[in-house]
Amino acid sequence: MAKVERPFDEELKSLKEQLLEMASRAEEQIAQAVRGLKERKREMACEVLEKEQAVNQLDITIDENAMRLLALRQPMAADLRFITSALKISSDLERIGDLAVNIAERTIELIKHPQLKPLIDIPRMAEISQGMVRDAISAFIAGDADLARQVCERDDQVDQLNDQVFRELLTFMISDPSTITRAVDLILVGRHLERIADHATNIGEDVIYMVRGRTIKHHIEEQAVDIAKACGCK
Amino acid sequence: MAKVERPFDEELKSLKEQLLEMASRAEEQIAQAVRGLKERKREMACEVLEKEQAVNQLDITIDENAMRLLALRQPMAADLRFITSALKISSDLERIGDLAVNIAERTIELIKHPQLKPLIDIPRMAEISQGMVRDAISAFIAGDADLARQVCERDDQVDQLNDQVFRELLTFMISDPSTITRAVDLILVGRHLERIADHATNIGEDVIYMVRGRTIKHHIEEQAVDIAKACGCK
Repeated sequence: MAKVERPFDEELKSLKEQLLEMASRAEEQIAQAVRGLKERKREMACEVLEKEQAVNQLDITIDENAMRLLALRQPMAADLRFITSALKISSDLERIGDLAVNIAERTIELIKHPQLKPLIDIPRMAEISQGMVRDAISAFIAGDADLARQVCERDDQVDQLNDQVFRELLTFMISDPSTITRAVDLILVGRHLERIADHATNIGEDVIYMVRGRTIKHHIEEQAVDIAKACGCK
Repeated sequence: MAKVERPFDEELKSLKEQLLEMASRAEEQIAQAVRGLKERKREMACEVLEKEQAVNQLDITIDENAMRLLALRQPMAADLRFITSALKISSDLERIGDLAVNIAERTIELIKHPQLKPLIDIPRMAEISQGMVRDAISAFIAGDADLARQVCERDDQVDQLNDQVFRELLTFMISDPSTITRAVDLILVGRHLERIADHATNIGEDVIYMVRGRTIKHHIEEQAVDIAKACGCK
């Protein structure tokens, strides 16, 4: 028997579609910013700057719609968690868009100078981060906690690649100081991508919370101890 | 005539208190991380790592309380905006705590080596950012949109100081490559502080939205055009 469609369901569906569109634009922004950098195409980087507005506008629309649903529909349980998650996820997507813009800004600087080295790890980081954003949103739409958990697990790969990029660029700078400005710009690109992966991880955590109704944020105890240990504090 | 206190008011008051406590801890984390760096005190940096757990725990508590209030009280209008703002603000405070931890991690690395230079601009950035966090939360508690707007306006000062720090450290690296590792660490500290100020600005924007019921997020049109122009895209 077909489920009767309430107008509220329509509204939730439209919220989902807006989040899907925002995610696909954010993903495209990452891809284009890094492709512009790899292929040294200024016009691609400029396009990323021009398209930011559309991502920001979607954040505002989603926020307004989510608030309207909370106020008018007074949703309970699963619907409530879905809508508050949508509020948080749109903030993460908006920051991802900002970070893609930051990468495009670095690109515009970098391609004024000769290429430092062909880029391998940075495009790889971009690819993984984009996949994380895509899967985090799919997990949200499908309410799939397992997929969300896989997103969180991939964060380590991006962190490791970023450490690798960072160390390699330090070596470049030390052996040839004329590379410093470019190397620092590339280090920043690496950090931006690492943060994009962090935002995708936040979304994954929100999805797990939404589905299971409990938070895995912070992994509190272990994480704090791990960091303190890694820093030689205990 | 005294207003009758509903239990709901008590619950909102308790949510406010939790946010105040979280903000004051986040602020203290920034102060201590940068004091540890300035005074080269490893144990201060280690303390920042150890105290992170308490900030994260508050984020979870605030999230849970806000969700409970949304579910059980089905608040309308101003109360609804207050509670959804609390959800967003606690995320920003949690990230601020993370960034203080990132600074402490850099500190632990930096003080293994001789001091590159006495720090002036970085402590100044920390001071402004802390003040921004403090005022953003005061604005939230008091529902003071003017104070919130002042917070947003101070963001530029932090950005300018960060540019200054960045350029000065580039000069260091170029004239003496033995400074590169330390200079890059300090550049990252500058970026972390800049992002702390960004999160305080996000809180300020949320407060303005909460009070006025409209969004100033993104300043859409102008900002996108400004960035594109600054990058020479148009």
